[in-house]
Amino acid sequence: MSREKSLSNAIGALLDSYRRHGNINHLEATALPPRHRVTQLLDDLMDLVFPGYFGEENLDELTSTYVLGERCARILRDLSAVCARALRVEDCGTKMRAGRGSPAEVEAHAQQVAMRLLEALPSVRDVLATDVQAALSGDPAACTSEEVILSYPGVQAITSHRIAHELYRLGVPMLPRMMSEVTHSRTGIDIHPGATIGHSFFIDHGTGLVMGETTLIGRGAKLYQGVTLGALSVRGGRDEAGSIKRHPTLEDDVTIYAGATILGGETVIGRGSVIGGNVWLTHSVGPGTTVVLDKPSLLFKQS
Amino acid sequence: MSREKSLSNAIGALLDSYRRHGNINHLEATALPPRHRVTQLLDDLMDLVFPGYFGEENLDELTSTYVLGERCARILRDLSAVCARALRVEDCGTKMRAGRGSPAEVEAHAQQVAMRLLEALPSVRDVLATDVQAALSGDPAACTSEEVILSYPGVQAITSHRIAHELYRLGVPMLPRMMSEVTHSRTGIDIHPGATIGHSFFIDHGTGLVMGETTLIGRGAKLYQGVTLGALSVRGGRDEAGSIKRHPTLEDDVTIYAGATILGGETVIGRGSVIGGNVWLTHSVGPGTTVVLDKPSLLFKQS
Amino acid sequence: MSREKSLSNAIGALLDSYRRHGNINHLEATALPPRHRVTQLLDDLMDLVFPGYFGEENLDELTSTYVLGERCARILRDLSAVCARALRVEDCGTKMRAGRGSPAEVEAHAQQVAMRLLEALPSVRDVLATDVQAALSGDPAACTSEEVILSYPGVQAITSHRIAHELYRLGVPMLPRMMSEVTHSRTGIDIHPGATIGHSFFIDHGTGLVMGETTLIGRGAKLYQGVTLGALSVRGGRDEAGSIKRHPTLEDDVTIYAGATILGGETVIGRGSVIGGNVWLTHSVGPGTTVVLDKPSLLFKQS
Repeated sequence: MSREKSLSNAIGALLDSYRRHGNINHLEATALPPRHRVTQLLDDLMDLVFPGYFGEENLDELTSTYVLGERCARILRDLSAVCARALRVEDCGTKMRAGRGSPAEVEAHAQQVAMRLLEALPSVRDVLATDVQAALSGDPAACTSEEVILSYPGVQAITSHRIAHELYRLGVPMLPRMMSEVTHSRTGIDIHPGATIGHSFFIDHGTGLVMGETTLIGRGAKLYQGVTLGALSVRGGRDEAGSIKRHPTLEDDVTIYAGATILGGETVIGRGSVIGGNVWLTHSVGPGTTVVLDKPSLLFKQS
Repeated sequence: MSREKSLSNAIGALLDSYRRHGNINHLEATALPPRHRVTQLLDDLMDLVFPGYFGEENLDELTSTYVLGERCARILRDLSAVCARALRVEDCGTKMRAGRGSPAEVEAHAQQVAMRLLEALPSVRDVLATDVQAALSGDPAACTSEEVILSYPGVQAITSHRIAHELYRLGVPMLPRMMSEVTHSRTGIDIHPGATIGHSFFIDHGTGLVMGETTLIGRGAKLYQGVTLGALSVRGGRDEAGSIKRHPTLEDDVTIYAGATILGGETVIGRGSVIGGNVWLTHSVGPGTTVVLDKPSLLFKQS
Repeated sequence: MSREKSLSNAIGALLDSYRRHGNINHLEATALPPRHRVTQLLDDLMDLVFPGYFGEENLDELTSTYVLGERCARILRDLSAVCARALRVEDCGTKMRAGRGSPAEVEAHAQQVAMRLLEALPSVRDVLATDVQAALSGDPAACTSEEVILSYPGVQAITSHRIAHELYRLGVPMLPRMMSEVTHSRTGIDIHPGATIGHSFFIDHGTGLVMGETTLIGRGAKLYQGVTLGALSVRGGRDEAGSIKRHPTLEDDVTIYAGATILGGETVIGRGSVIGGNVWLTHSVGPGTTVVLDKPSLLFKQS
């Protein structure tokens, strides 16, 4: 068979396949939020909450007003466009049902949501200021807020999360999760945009950390790499399990060391508790509790 | 010493060093597959198996034929070029010995391999349709196939793997592993392209998951973050150990929770078994077995 | 309220917020090293230590001299510029205090540091040649030095670390940590640039590995994914804890399997020791010791 014929056959077979599997095609459907635009938007928003850190520009008090104005107008336009695409995607959960209606209604709703996010940024910054402080006082290797903001994956993850969580609360489907996955990919830290996290939050190192949708965390929490705040068991689809609390609650000032796993929606870790490395916990502990592995049995063999 | 002199000395020292360490230079040798082109190729192929998801375009039935034709022709050309470079690299294992011969023979072989990959995509899509379904039914937080395809790292990882595995089976050296490392970098999920994985496969979260070259997995497996399917012990180089089965077998419908480690080429996890979080297993278990850590000894101290 | 008015209010609120939180603004301050330029610089330096691997070019002995000269001159210029920015950032630790002085003095110091790094590359390459060899002999799935250099995250991580560590030793603030975080993001391997690592070093898979600032490692170490070499406990800020040894020492030829955690600045793992998977160790062990988990209690339940 000639090369041309082979290629033509292969294309025909792919087209047949596109017709066969409806759920993994998106050809004639509404345009989705493109991944690279979501990434760009997240970067623009992070630039807005930490001005002067990531770009080349050197702004002063006077010019910053105009630069900021231009930037906000642009972000508002891009965010509206991406939100409108997200709002047109069919969704499932009640919390997620947001922008049904005529194209004009969806458009108007998307613009409203985008403006709300911009309006929320000053209070997001209030909380992030406490997070940066928590990183500085929580890590003996941390030097300056510059170092922490520019190079700490935990600070990057909580910044991205606080932005994505606002969009989640505003009922935008898909977009918050796409943002959290951009950050998961960059940091290894996997925080569902639904998680509610108090101020002065610090994650050190962070790779492998997983935090589920219905997690509740008070202020002053400190978490290390490989910590899981997860569900005890997973039954059924979103309809049955989607709306109940499946992930733990941490009261104020809880520290959880590397590799610890805490599971279950009714599990509450009391205020000021410390959970040791690799601990596996599926029930509540009272305030001020320290939980560590009992001396694990190790075998030592001299060669 | 003047700055010019210092620079000239530094350059001379580097050149000497290039001459000294043959194995870490690639100056006069054959051109290698460039990393950014492998990344681009993987993205193009993922776009081909999930059309309309990642790009900006909004295709309809009519135009999609022509767009698809152009895209396939371009991918075929790029894939042939990269495969030809990979086939010229000296390799080691028998499975990997593929494209020895004259430049023209290597070229022809590379074109054949590239065409075979295109031809395999419809059946890759058949299996991926079951993987997307497994993600939707396996995660209570999952809403739509759009969300799952656009933002689930586990779906990204299995898509990339099913493509890389085809190239591995076609005997292309280096390229499959480069693709799997692009995806490892993006998702934290490290699946060797040699692993054989049945349909309806789902990885949740996934960061830190490691799956070795000779792993065999039946249909319906569900794996969580931090799972290792590894080798029991590693002795000698590829010559001795490269061709034997070093990694576990999972029969159909096995679930493995976060952080579990299963090691050894003769370890078989029986059909329908459930392996609990953090379990460390180096021997087989029969069908329908549930393995969990016995209540780990924890110390609780009230402050 | 009109859309224009809303936007104008949102911008005003953001400006107020910028004035309020001094520590998370960088508007009128000195320009920082931009993240994308640090990434580019790291890639250029890795290209310099493994010539011909990552780019498209196909260099021969003759042209390589000129290409190398051009490349070194460009890197020297870019590195000087980024170092100058880093040296102007206020820092904290003694080791980090480097480039105080007038703008001209900082500039001169930055140029000196950049030249020193170039001059150090041949000896960095001497050590990297042993690391590539260690990867080839340590992993039965490894075929060629091409495969190892192009696709092994562990080799990428140690290459990046050996470069960043030189900058750390030269007293450049921020920049080494920014480089190590670029690599952490790409590989999931988190090595503080302060860690001192002997030759013939190999990390397999690597996701989730954490190595602290004052870690000391002899030659021939082999580490797997999820290993933590960390601090026993963290008290106070950098002033109290920053200058003492907080992380373990590994003597020559130590192997540490996946998920093991070794903590504490006084913990020494004796020469030739093997630490098994998931072991949690906070005290020293003598030379030639094998440490494994005692048979963990598992519960098996047949369904």
